[in-house]
This record gives sequence, C-alpha cells and structure tokens, in this order.
Amino acid sequence: MRDKIGVALLGFGRMGETHLRNLSGLSQVKVVVVADPRREAAERGKAISGAEEALTDVEKAIAHPAVDAVVIVTPTDTHAHLLELAAHASKAVFSEKPIALDLAETARVVKIIQERGIPVQLGFMRRFDPGYARAKQKIDAGELGRIELFRALSRDTYPPSLEFLLGSGGIFLDMAVHDLDLARFLVGEVEEVQAWGTVLVDEKFSKAKDADTAVTLLRFRNGALGVVETSRHSNWGYDIRTEVAGAVAKVVVEAAQKTPLLLARDFTSTFDHFENFPDRFQAAYRLELESFFSALLEARQPSPGPQDALETLRLGLAAAKSWRENRPVKTSEVQP
Amino acid sequence: MRDKIGVALLGFGRMGETHLRNLSGLSQVKVVVVADPRREAAERGKAISGAEEALTDVEKAIAHPAVDAVVIVTPTDTHAHLLELAAHASKAVFSEKPIALDLAETARVVKIIQERGIPVQLGFMRRFDPGYARAKQKIDAGELGRIELFRALSRDTYPPSLEFLLGSGGIFLDMAVHDLDLARFLVGEVEEVQAWGTVLVDEKFSKAKDADTAVTLLRFRNGALGVVETSRHSNWGYDIRTEVAGAVAKVVVEAAQKTPLLLARDFTSTFDHFENFPDRFQAAYRLELESFFSALLEARQPSPGPQDALETLRLGLAAAKSWRENRPVKTSEVQP
Amino acid sequence: MRDKIGVALLGFGRMGETHLRNLSGLSQVKVVVVADPRREAAERGKAISGAEEALTDVEKAIAHPAVDAVVIVTPTDTHAHLLELAAHASKAVFSEKPIALDLAETARVVKIIQERGIPVQLGFMRRFDPGYARAKQKIDAGELGRIELFRALSRDTYPPSLEFLLGSGGIFLDMAVHDLDLARFLVGEVEEVQAWGTVLVDEKFSKAKDADTAVTLLRFRNGALGVVETSRHSNWGYDIRTEVAGAVAKVVVEAAQKTPLLLARDFTSTFDHFENFPDRFQAAYRLELESFFSALLEARQPSPGPQDALETLRLGLAAAKSWRENRPVKTSEVQP
Amino acid sequence: MRDKIGVALLGFGRMGETHLRNLSGLSQVKVVVVADPRREAAERGKAISGAEEALTDVEKAIAHPAVDAVVIVTPTDTHAHLLELAAHASKAVFSEKPIALDLAETARVVKIIQERGIPVQLGFMRRFDPGYARAKQKIDAGELGRIELFRALSRDTYPPSLEFLLGSGGIFLDMAVHDLDLARFLVGEVEEVQAWGTVLVDEKFSKAKDADTAVTLLRFRNGALGVVETSRHSNWGYDIRTEVAGAVAKVVVEAAQKTPLLLARDFTSTFDHFENFPDRFQAAYRLELESFFSALLEARQPSPGPQDALETLRLGLAAAKSWRENRPVKTSEVQP
Repeated sequence: MRDKIGVALLGFGRMGETHLRNLSGLSQVKVVVVADPRREAAERGKAISGAEEALTDVEKAIAHPAVDAVVIVTPTDTHAHLLELAAHASKAVFSEKPIALDLAETARVVKIIQERGIPVQLGFMRRFDPGYARAKQKIDAGELGRIELFRALSRDTYPPSLEFLLGSGGIFLDMAVHDLDLARFLVGEVEEVQAWGTVLVDEKFSKAKDADTAVTLLRFRNGALGVVETSRHSNWGYDIRTEVAGAVAKVVVEAAQKTPLLLARDFTSTFDHFENFPDRFQAAYRLELESFFSALLEARQPSPGPQDALETLRLGLAAAKSWRENRPVKTSEVQP
Repeated sequence: MRDKIGVALLGFGRMGETHLRNLSGLSQVKVVVVADPRREAAERGKAISGAEEALTDVEKAIAHPAVDAVVIVTPTDTHAHLLELAAHASKAVFSEKPIALDLAETARVVKIIQERGIPVQLGFMRRFDPGYARAKQKIDAGELGRIELFRALSRDTYPPSLEFLLGSGGIFLDMAVHDLDLARFLVGEVEEVQAWGTVLVDEKFSKAKDADTAVTLLRFRNGALGVVETSRHSNWGYDIRTEVAGAVAKVVVEAAQKTPLLLARDFTSTFDHFENFPDRFQAAYRLELESFFSALLEARQPSPGPQDALETLRLGLAAAKSWRENRPVKTSEVQP
Repeated sequence: MRDKIGVALLGFGRMGETHLRNLSGLSQVKVVVVADPRREAAERGKAISGAEEALTDVEKAIAHPAVDAVVIVTPTDTHAHLLELAAHASKAVFSEKPIALDLAETARVVKIIQERGIPVQLGFMRRFDPGYARAKQKIDAGELGRIELFRALSRDTYPPSLEFLLGSGGIFLDMAVHDLDLARFLVGEVEEVQAWGTVLVDEKFSKAKDADTAVTLLRFRNGALGVVETSRHSNWGYDIRTEVAGAVAKVVVEAAQKTPLLLARDFTSTFDHFENFPDRFQAAYRLELESFFSALLEARQPSPGPQDALETLRLGLAAAKSWRENRPVKTSEVQP
Repeated sequence: MRDKIGVALLGFGRMGETHLRNLSGLSQVKVVVVADPRREAAERGKAISGAEEALTDVEKAIAHPAVDAVVIVTPTDTHAHLLELAAHASKAVFSEKPIALDLAETARVVKIIQERGIPVQLGFMRRFDPGYARAKQKIDAGELGRIELFRALSRDTYPPSLEFLLGSGGIFLDMAVHDLDLARFLVGEVEEVQAWGTVLVDEKFSKAKDADTAVTLLRFRNGALGVVETSRHSNWGYDIRTEVAGAVAKVVVEAAQKTPLLLARDFTSTFDHFENFPDRFQAAYRLELESFFSALLEARQPSPGPQDALETLRLGLAAAKSWRENRPVKTSEVQP
C-alpha cells in the first residue's frame, strides 16, 4: 500500500468543500484529484486541498491510478452510477446518502458492492456526533435496559427550493430519513409505521405533492414504540432532539446551545442556537471521515454500509407510503 | 354572602390532604366540613384544617348549610353522582377529573350543571403550572404565529396497582388525558387521532386489557399535527415535557430540575428530578384552587369547566378506540 | 399546651404579609393577634388571617395571654427591644434579621435570650431553600470532601431608597450578610476578610457613605478560601449563585429559571429570571416558619439562632471595617 | 509571496501535535519543517504533517529559507531566545505564552519584536473560544453598558508535577494568568490586585513555595471590580466559568456539557464535563491559528501581540507579589 490513501473528491459544492477541508486534516490521507463537471469548482477544490489534479470528468477521477478511495458528494441521482463504477474499479467509497431514491436500484447497487467486496460507507453523519455515538455506546452496554420508547424531532431552518424538492424524494426520504436511521441505529429494525403529513409552511410543498410537516409512529421489531416529528422550517434555527428511553434509563441528545455564552438582561437569559446542519454537525462530518479511513487502514468494513442504506431507505419508503395511503404500513410490504 | 366561602372537602386521601393544606392558605376560604366515609380520615382532616365538623356521610356535607362550595376528591366513580347532588343543592364545585369515564354519563351531568348554572371547575391542574400558563399567554398573544406542531411526553414514575388499573379507564383516559387536555388548551380541538399501545412495563397491564406504553398522533382542527408519548413507568422520576411550535416561535415546558442544585464530581454534573406529580405540580395544585375561588368571588365561571371535561374525555375515548380498533378515529365518531 | 400554637405577628408590611400567609398554611398554628402601629395595616392583617385581634401596640401583642410565639417583622431598629420584651415574657420568637446592627447591643440581647432560655430563630431564609438545604446535607455527609473554595454572587434587582440606605447598616450588613451567613452555614467560621467596595450604580450610595458594588475575600478557619461579589442593582433580575468546592465534589446552587418555560425564536432560546427575593425564595420563607414551629412542637432549639445572628453580624462588620480601613481584618478584631 | 505560507513547527510535544494537526487543516499553510531536539519526535511530526524536513536543531528551522513563519511550542524558558532569533530572521511568530516569566526579559524581547516589526501572536487561546469571542463582541458593541463586575473561576483537573511546578512561575503566572488575560481582554487594564493563596491540594506546592488554591481581587482602571478563583485540582473535570456584568446586561461563558447527551436514571440527570483544556478549547486552538495566518495574509498585526503578553505578565506578577507580601499591589509597582 501507498504511504497515504489517495483520495478523489467527486463534487465540489458546499458539502464537498466541507468534506475537502476535513480530508486536509487527516494525516493518513492525500487528496489526489478534485473532480467536478464545473471546471471552476474543480480548480477551486484543487487550490484549497493542494490536490495534484482538477478534473471535470468524475469517471476519470474514479479510474485515476493514484486514487484508492473516492468521496462522492455529487447530486443524488448520480450516486448509484458512481458507486457502481467505483465497485468495478475496486475503489473504496465514502458516499453521501442515499444510494438512490428507488429501492430496486439501491438493491441492485448494494448487490454489486457486496459481490465486489469494496468498503463503502454512507454519509449518515449523525451517528458520529459525539452525543449520538455516546448514546449508542450506553445502549449497547445495556445501561438503558430494555428499550421502550424512541422520540425524535427534526426541524430544518430553511425550506428548500421547489426545484430541489422535485428531486428530493420528499420529506420522508430526504429529511425524516435522518431520524429513521437514528431509530435503526439506536433501537433496531422497525416493523411498522404510520405517518401523517400536511402543508403548513409553504404552498410549494403542495405543488411538489410533498408535505412540509409530518408526524410518524414507529413500531420496532423488539416491541418498542416511537414517534418522529419533522418540519421543513424553523424560525429559531436547526432544531434536533432525540430521546431513547428504556426500563432503566433514558438518554437525550440535543445540542441546544451554539456557543458557551449566556446573555442576561431584562429579566431573561438568552443563548444562541445552531443555524443549520453544517454548524450543528461540524464534528460529525469530520469524525465520519476519520472513521471511514480508520476502517480502510485497519482493513475493516466501514459502517454505516450499503445494507444500512437499503434498510433506512425501505423505512423511509414505508413512511411515505403510509402517508400517501393513509394507513399503517409494514416495512416488509416495501420490496424492490 | 358570608365573610368567607364555606367549603366542604369530600374525600381525605393523599390528594385530599394536598387540597386541604392549600385551602388553609386561602384567606377567603373557611373549611367547614371534612367528609370521608372513613371516620378516622375525616377526623384527621378536621384536625389539620380546623374545620368545624368531620362527617362520614359526604352527601350530608354537600347539604350542610354553612357550605358554599365543595371540593371533590373522592374515588372517580363517585364524581358524577356528587356533582349532580351539588348541582341540585346549588353549591359551587371544584372536582378532581374526570366527571365520569363514560361519555353519556358525563354529558348527562354536564347538562345538569349547565341547567343549574352552578360554577364548576375540573382538576386539570397542569393548566395552572406557571410554565403552561405562560405558554398559553404567549400562544394567545400570537407570539408563536400559526401553530404547526404539538409534542408531549408523560411518564409516571410508578405503575399503579392492578386494582386501580381496572377502574382507571386505561392509559388513555387516566394518563394520556393530561396531555390531551394540554393539546386542547394550548392548540385547540383535535379532529382525528391514531394511537398505538403495547405492554412493556408489567404484565398486569395485559391482565387489565390495558397498555402501559403508548404513542398517539393528533390532527388538530386548525391543521396542526401532534404526537403524544405516554408511559406508566419511569426509573428516572416523573418525566413531563411539552412543546408547541409555530411559524414564528416555539415554547417548551419542562421542569427538569427539582432543586436549584447541581452536584459536580467524577467528570459529570448531576441534578435531581421530581419524584412524582405532587412535587412537580405543587404550585399548580395551589394555583388551581386560588383560581377557582377567585372566580367565585368575582362571580365568573371558573375554567376548565364541564365542557372541557367532556371534550377532553371525548378525545381520550377516541385515542382508546383508535388503539383498540387499530385505525385512525375522528373525534366526531365518539358520541354519547 | 394549647391545641395550637397561638401566634402574634408584629409588623404588617410586605414581608409581614408574606409571613402571615405562610402562617395560615400551617395547621399547628393559630394567628391570634396582628399588631402594627398603623391601625389600617393591623386590621388588614387581621382580615387576611382571621386573627382574633388587631392591635396597634406591638408590646401588648407580645404580652397577650393567648400568644405563645411572636413573629417579628417590624423595622430593624425595633428588633432588639422586642426580642428583649419577648424574652422576659417567655414567648418564643421568630424574628427577621438582624437582632441589631451593633455588636454590643446584639451581644446584650443574645445574652438575655440565652439566660431566659426562650426559643429564637432568625430569618436567614436562604438556609431553608431546597437548594441550600440539600447542599448543606451533602457537605455534612462528607460528599464534597475537604472544602477548598466558597464562591458567592448576589445582585439585588432594585437599589433601595436613600432613606432606607441610611438605616440599613450598608452593603455588607444589609446585603452581603446573606452570603456571609451561607459561608458560615456551608463552610464554617471565617477568620479573616478583605473587602473592596465602590460606587458604580447610583450616586446616592456615595451620599450614604456606602458602596453599591463590592468584592470580598474570605479565609475560613478550616483553611478554605472564598470570594463574595455583591451588587445593589441588576438589570436582569435577582441574581444569586453560590458554589462550594471540595476535594471530591462541588455543589452549585442557582435557580436561574423562573418558570419551566423556554421560548425559542430568531436563533435563540430565552428563559425568564426571578424578579426579586420574594419570588426566588418563596419556598424558603414558608419552610423557615415550618421549621421554627416544628422545633417548638418538638421542644428543640430552632436554628439559625441568636449565636448565628451574632457571628454573622461580626463577619459583616469585619467586611465593612476591611473596606473602610482598606486592609485585611480578622473577625477576632471585631468585639462588642 | 509564495503560494502558501511556509511554516516551521518548533517543539513536538502534546501541544505541538495539536497545533500541527490544526496547521494541516489550513489551506493557505504548508508545514515545511518540524523541529524538535528529540529526533524521534521531529520525525513523527514530519510523518503526520507531510513536512519536507525533520530537524533536531530548532534554530536551523527558523533560518530555513522556505520558512515564513514559526510556531513555537518549546519549553517556556526557550521562548524568549527563539522569538529573538525569529525577529532577527524576520520570520512571523506564533508562540505559546509566555514570552518569559521575568518582566525585564519580556520587555527586552518585546522591544526587539517591535523594532523589527515582525508579526507576533501569543497563545492566549481562550480569546478565540466562540464563547469568549462573542462576549468580547457584545462588550465592545456596548450591549452590557458600563462594566461593573468581572468574575472568573478556573480549576485544572490534574495538579502538575513538582518538576513542572518549579519552572512554572507559580499559580499566578502559570494558571491564573489565563483569567487575568481574559480580564484585560474583556474589561480593560487592572490597576490594583489583592491575592490570597494557600496549599490545600498537595504538599508538593509547599515544597515549590507555591500555592494550589488562590483567590484574587481586581480593581480595574475603569472602576469595575473583579474576583478570580484558581485551583490546581478538580475531581469533576476542567472547570472554567467567566462572567462580566454591566449596568445593562451580563454575559456568562461556561461550557459545562462536553457532549450533547443527558443521561437520566435513578431520579437524576447527568451530563459529562470536559476532562481538560485540549478538549474544552479544541476549537479555540484551531481558531487562534486561523486568526494568526489570516492576519499574515492580510498584512495586519495579529492579536494578542507582545504588548498583551507584557501587560498580562505584569498583572500576574502583581498578583504573585500581593500574595507573597500579603498586601494590595498596584500594577504600576511592577516594573522591569
């Protein structure tokens, strides 16, 4: 093996830049190529990272001989194809979620990945947040006893554009999916869901045949129950809170305070919130890449892997189906 | 009118004692009678309050000429009958909830109360907690904007006895009802519910054909959505948290810390929780009585009144029905 | 002994009304007399409490045959004389602090009280706040290990009037004294102090030859050190925070949040502060009276007693002396 | 100017490694040399950073032609000499504090730096913590009104070794200095101090003629007062809290919670503390370097600079002198 793991970053948008800066801080990694169909973006990525090459052809970047691993931050509808190419080129992959919005397509790609045996990690970054990671440890150590209830709330600060919405897969696949993944991560597989959605924030969600506000019940295979609240807008900042309660103890994960500062005046104290996911999950974005490259170096399979992507997608599809058909839906009903 | 409002306390159990001590602190009130079928209990109540008489016949207490108002803290299945007697005797009533567990019976008593025009307040004490009262003010003042999401969690510390369970009306009528009342109080009437329940805490709940763990979706008439989580057991103390989120702001009501003390050691800080409702809602129990007697003195109808009891019961019945029939239930389906 | 302890309340101002309402909630107590030189005040107190008599002569109230105990809430400069009268009349006394602002006068009265053996409790209410009481328990149980540092902050919301200031004894005797008493209560006797003061809030403090802002170092007899910050004004409400740190653990007592409500909007969360001592220490005012009457009923000496009043006064005088003479002062230098 | 700023890291201990990793994440910076007298350390630093050279001669590293800036993380007693060398070689310097423990020596080096006009920043990292940075903004914007009181507490988790103590300059220069720097940063210059110290934690502090526990009063030039509490040991983790109170508002900076996780069980909630400064001030260490290199790129003088180092040292020396001489000391008394 080379001295350092050679990496190609595919896609230099806002998220790509975040990943690129985090890659720069990893001593075992060398960014070899930054690829983006937009020449200017690729060049800017190269400049920031000190990469050797800027390419506009992302497929060439995958094939590049000095590239051991690719980090996929391109638009959602390209993930499946790029993963497939990487699998055939035997390159390790860290990819933003999802593999695809379609279960059959996802299953097809997962199968290829598994047959080719390449290490693949999907970008469910919350799992690496120090709060969620510690919650997971405590749950796995049995500190909570038998899990009884899961409870999640997520509010995005700014509603996305109509254009984004149309390709997003909707509120359950694009947004609730983070809480559904946490539900699987922290509690286990879900057997049945019941989701309700509505449009309260902006009429564009009606145009996109989507909801902007949703509530979902979960029934886990181990008997626990759960609720998930999801909203596409928050006038008070990025609002994420997750609770897992068991027979013995409960954990709450919430980073309410952005900075360690409290301002007192006029008979009140005030603290600041995070504005959005890049500041709330800053550490998580760094830690998920660290974890991916550690797995590569130690020749372990990274996690969360393709099977997680598949099961979390299935759960999101079940929720969306429940909403559309206005009935409880078993996850086993959702098949490729 | 007399100098002071003459009061009969009916039922001297634990809750009765709480109310009796709070009555003693009200300068406009004189406890005239303490009535309890158990002679000893009645006498103890008399001693504590300095009441003139201890009676074992609660009906006589209602009829007592020096009694202007009765405070009903007797077992649930006696509430309707005692309210009816008080209505016919034209006595004002503060009664623990519910009027009855049956909608028809409740409607019958509410009708009598309304025809007789007596002032009646039901013991939904949470409305008087300084947190919830302030939340209500802010919502009514429009500070939250259009309400979008309601979110409630309640865990009782200790599961009740099987004997209690059998007469309790079940988890939705006996326990979730507090959050359902808050939902109505803070957001408005509910149109439809979907509830799931299960037994995770203790097999006695199965014997009682009841659930000990439940999750409920709410759809409000004004379009807002909501979730309620309910559990009959908490190994970490009485656990109550309520959120109401609107287009502009959100309020969270939670009294996590029992005393203003933080203990730091071994790389952690620790604070104490409330053990149960009497300590968490100590102020609310006092304030609901103050509010009741203020209404009497100012010749206003006290609130929450019989109609609230009826609508909150309807909502609880809808949730129980949804759970038993495993389908969404409209509150309009629940009729006497 | 009588059925109930007969009580005379002396002085019906704001604090007197607070005590009177708390007395009404005590089942073992009967308010017999309310005395205030202002006829109207005495009558209003009588009406609120249902006392038998309203007197304008407080000395007669002490002598009243149905009075077993007196609660002194009159102006500071009358405390010593009334305590003396009560001692000679063998009545138990709960008195607002201080006994007197002068050490010799205080020592004289303490001696009379001790010779007469009457039960006397002074109104250092913070000791009864659930936070401080629990801190004391933990310290006494050895949970903190050897105490190393004490740290107190007190800010009053509103500066007092010049008239009040002139008779108050100054910032150290009137205000810092609460933290000095907590220092003695929680850590032990103080050997030496160094205080600095200044005028930053209002020029009237200069006129009164007083400070409105002060900082004090403490050296305890057991070797621990401490700091106290004191200010006569707070634009953000009543601000009290106390820490005691030991070799093993530390306790922090601070009731930052007035109601269990958090309001989130515009990228911040906000909670309300207490406005002033009557709302922050509401429970403590009730509990100190409960404790006093429990001691009487159980024939124990109540606490904090006259010796505490003397030692805390000595400490306050040492701080004031240190400030005026701009040098460290040993408490042993302060003698009657 | 070169493409990137060429950097030499001098000293690869624990702190050196932290800085080196942060340098790797800065896109405008290239680590050219890692120098440490211990060959192995220098080589490890080279490997981590991808530097071109590992040197055991730190003076050669300063002189290296590809080096534009040096980051000094060597032992304290070498700082002055290395700063002097860098000044003569016209290299920019980021140096860990202090320049020296002696005021005359510090003044001499500051003079050389100022004459040579090189950009120098000292490692008072707390100024870059998002909490303190925001506090400073608010104070400078006048949001607090006239500053009245400063209040700081710092406890280190683990007492240092006797060997370290002997060269540390003592508790005031080595530890309280961080709070004294914050006092200057947030409130302004200090005119007079009064410090008390003692040994409560470990007898080795007596051997070193040092204190392990100290309290200090501050009088600022603008009239404000302050207190600082300092301890060399904390059984509950790294404990840092700072308050600045003004006529209008107050700010509190404290990062009590290490991760966004609360664990509830047995009637309590518990959260984790930071263990030590590297985890509490992780962001600050990164941000101070970012700020230094931004200043270089924009040809501004970085801050805090040599004059700040001098004035903060003077303040620390005044506190130490006050403790040793047991009297108030004016900072103007402390002269080279």
